[in-house]
Amino acid sequence: MRHDHLITSKQLSREDIEAVLDRAAEIDADPAAVAQRHAGTLLGLLFFEPSTRTKMSFETAMKRLGGDIVDMGSVESSSVKKGESLADTVRVIDGYTDALVLRHPREGAAKMASEFVDVPLLNAGDGAGHHPTQTLLDLYTIRENAGLDDLTIGIMGDLKYGRTVHSLAYALTNFDTQQHFISPESLQLPREVVYDLHLEGTTVREHETLDEILPSLDVLYVTRIQRERFPDENEYQQIAGQYQIDAATLEAASDDLTVMHPLPRVDEIAADVDETTHAAYFEQAHNGVPVRMALLDLLLGGETDE
Amino acid sequence: MRHDHLITSKQLSREDIEAVLDRAAEIDADPAAVAQRHAGTLLGLLFFEPSTRTKMSFETAMKRLGGDIVDMGSVESSSVKKGESLADTVRVIDGYTDALVLRHPREGAAKMASEFVDVPLLNAGDGAGHHPTQTLLDLYTIRENAGLDDLTIGIMGDLKYGRTVHSLAYALTNFDTQQHFISPESLQLPREVVYDLHLEGTTVREHETLDEILPSLDVLYVTRIQRERFPDENEYQQIAGQYQIDAATLEAASDDLTVMHPLPRVDEIAADVDETTHAAYFEQAHNGVPVRMALLDLLLGGETDE
Amino acid sequence: MRHDHLITSKQLSREDIEAVLDRAAEIDADPAAVAQRHAGTLLGLLFFEPSTRTKMSFETAMKRLGGDIVDMGSVESSSVKKGESLADTVRVIDGYTDALVLRHPREGAAKMASEFVDVPLLNAGDGAGHHPTQTLLDLYTIRENAGLDDLTIGIMGDLKYGRTVHSLAYALTNFDTQQHFISPESLQLPREVVYDLHLEGTTVREHETLDEILPSLDVLYVTRIQRERFPDENEYQQIAGQYQIDAATLEAASDDLTVMHPLPRVDEIAADVDETTHAAYFEQAHNGVPVRMALLDLLLGGETDE
Repeated sequence: MRHDHLITSKQLSREDIEAVLDRAAEIDADPAAVAQRHAGTLLGLLFFEPSTRTKMSFETAMKRLGGDIVDMGSVESSSVKKGESLADTVRVIDGYTDALVLRHPREGAAKMASEFVDVPLLNAGDGAGHHPTQTLLDLYTIRENAGLDDLTIGIMGDLKYGRTVHSLAYALTNFDTQQHFISPESLQLPREVVYDLHLEGTTVREHETLDEILPSLDVLYVTRIQRERFPDENEYQQIAGQYQIDAATLEAASDDLTVMHPLPRVDEIAADVDETTHAAYFEQAHNGVPVRMALLDLLLGGETDE
Repeated sequence: MRHDHLITSKQLSREDIEAVLDRAAEIDADPAAVAQRHAGTLLGLLFFEPSTRTKMSFETAMKRLGGDIVDMGSVESSSVKKGESLADTVRVIDGYTDALVLRHPREGAAKMASEFVDVPLLNAGDGAGHHPTQTLLDLYTIRENAGLDDLTIGIMGDLKYGRTVHSLAYALTNFDTQQHFISPESLQLPREVVYDLHLEGTTVREHETLDEILPSLDVLYVTRIQRERFPDENEYQQIAGQYQIDAATLEAASDDLTVMHPLPRVDEIAADVDETTHAAYFEQAHNGVPVRMALLDLLLGGETDE
Repeated sequence: MRHDHLITSKQLSREDIEAVLDRAAEIDADPAAVAQRHAGTLLGLLFFEPSTRTKMSFETAMKRLGGDIVDMGSVESSSVKKGESLADTVRVIDGYTDALVLRHPREGAAKMASEFVDVPLLNAGDGAGHHPTQTLLDLYTIRENAGLDDLTIGIMGDLKYGRTVHSLAYALTNFDTQQHFISPESLQLPREVVYDLHLEGTTVREHETLDEILPSLDVLYVTRIQRERFPDENEYQQIAGQYQIDAATLEAASDDLTVMHPLPRVDEIAADVDETTHAAYFEQAHNGVPVRMALLDLLLGGETDE
């Protein structure tokens, strides 16, 4: 890749994406081949917000490449409380490690931080902004299960606030996909995202119910509708219930339908779906490791002799 | 061992226990021989409750075998706050690591979690339930100091609520031991535990004071009496004081008496006991490392070439 | 070095200091030469107080030497909450690791703890007490930028409460330095520190403003004046403002002036200084790694074959 930092999936061309996914597939097929490839490399983890799976999968990825991590720990146990600026914090840690992963609650934090460091910086989520490694593992899971071209995908749930959804929809414009968006009217894609997708040549097809489109889908990507978006609990119950699926719902789907979810889920996918051949969300979470290994390998590649 | 998971010490036969203790003794005698034995292995640490020594000794054990850990961190910094089920959490992390250690406040959590994972899961304490690795390190310490057969052991303190004590007493029924239980009446062994021990052929000998039995003991296992068990502070002071020991208390004991404690202690063993030859509680804590190394080695063994 | 533990910089002779700084320079010049030197070594991190850069730089240092760490985690997630004494905690962990790093809020904690352990213990700050590794990295930065002999240094800011400043001033008495102290009258060096410095043959030159002395300085060491030292916000603003520097301030300085700061800074050094050739505070933070590597290497040295 020609990038020093990974801030947003918008910076990735089709070729960049395919380079990461191809490398991930190689690593997935033969992890032992890279088990010592980055021995001696240290990855700094700066998580200014809680995270389980993103942080653990970056840690696992670096260790599966033979490297190690240095973790800032939680904000409560750090100097941030003393009023240090993010720019100062990253400049100090830049001197300790060979690459950095940053999660921060403020949109734009990763871009700003990247301007102060010499080592590659990976954005692991900046508020309502970007989360490009989630998008890459989503793309990898889609490619493994349904292929990225000639794909009909439905994205369902909270399409207004979900950064995961916006990044994925945008990245899919690099491929030959038909995108359907299923949500209550109040949680539709923001108009500026629709406009961006149009500019990239993608037709945005919006639906209020899943029924009409489910049979034609190759992939159904479900996201959570958050209680706190609704002032009224009854209204939430009534609306959210229409966007929850179970095994019975999926009887109307193609046998080959792949169901995805960024996790954690609460009740938007019933437990009885887990046992069906449709369920790919745990595989999707596991794919975070080979995809992040591939990404780290490509970003660090120049520094290591295989 | 023939088990994939270690949930309770009840699942361990005498042969299983001896296999772990023998391997621990080998490792203790020559740790360098296994320093790279599990290089490349990752152990996931899922501690849903605070812990210092159990967590640090599992971490040390895995690293002393050449492997590494991936730590979920505290519950406050994890997705658990977002309402994810334990089954989902372990299924995700199952895909990252080669084995899992779980501590959880809910009794039965380890058993339930083990049904959702493909890698070996070790229970590091589930509420009032089980804590089998503590029992194994207790048995190892007893064997090293006094032998497990032809043993007279006194277990003193809070016998009602202490899961450590129940597991140890049960595990000792595999050996030729005489067990004495010393506690205030209100903190006696639960009757169902007494019944279980009888079924295994062990006579439960109960005492309200230490004096009468101390001279005949090979091992005295002390546990803490917790303030919160008593509604009245004065009553606590008066009762707890009778189950605290100091160097003077031990003058009535055999020269060979071994004093153990699962730690942390508060004031149930006075500091002047530390200097006596009886004190084995720090050695006992240190034994957590070779015993957990042995256990990990046996559970992971098939996957590694020595 | 002839010391088993590093508790205070007062225990270090000129020869000891130079041994650490020389080793740090060697490591800095060729880190690859030591990348596996302490493989298999475990360093225990016991931080009873929050810290970012000290903890991360110890972790980085140990890992850059091929070793690994075992981290107690935050006090909230540890047995300390159950009332365990510091002596018991360190005695347990002493059995897990090959060396220990301790930070504790109580003055004298490191000295006390060191009496209970068999492995080398490094003090990483004990309340208002000592923080010798900070002093060593300060000395290293001074030596690299200006030399330690024939040096004129100005130390500015909160000289009353800053342990960093007291340790540094004391350590500099081993060298041929002229020391100037710039602070408001209310935050002058404590008289006992002045007395100690006199005993070591150092003349304490005190100033209320920077202007008069700035042109003659080789090094200016800035520390933060904390808001909470002043009952009145206006008084704080007025006084603190006089001890803040920016690029314009430094126009009166020598071209070779080196500006240092222990970090984190808030507003005592303006961002426009970062771009000048004077700024050495990020380099100073980065020096924490080779200096701590050198220290660990010297303390552990006997145990490892190169």
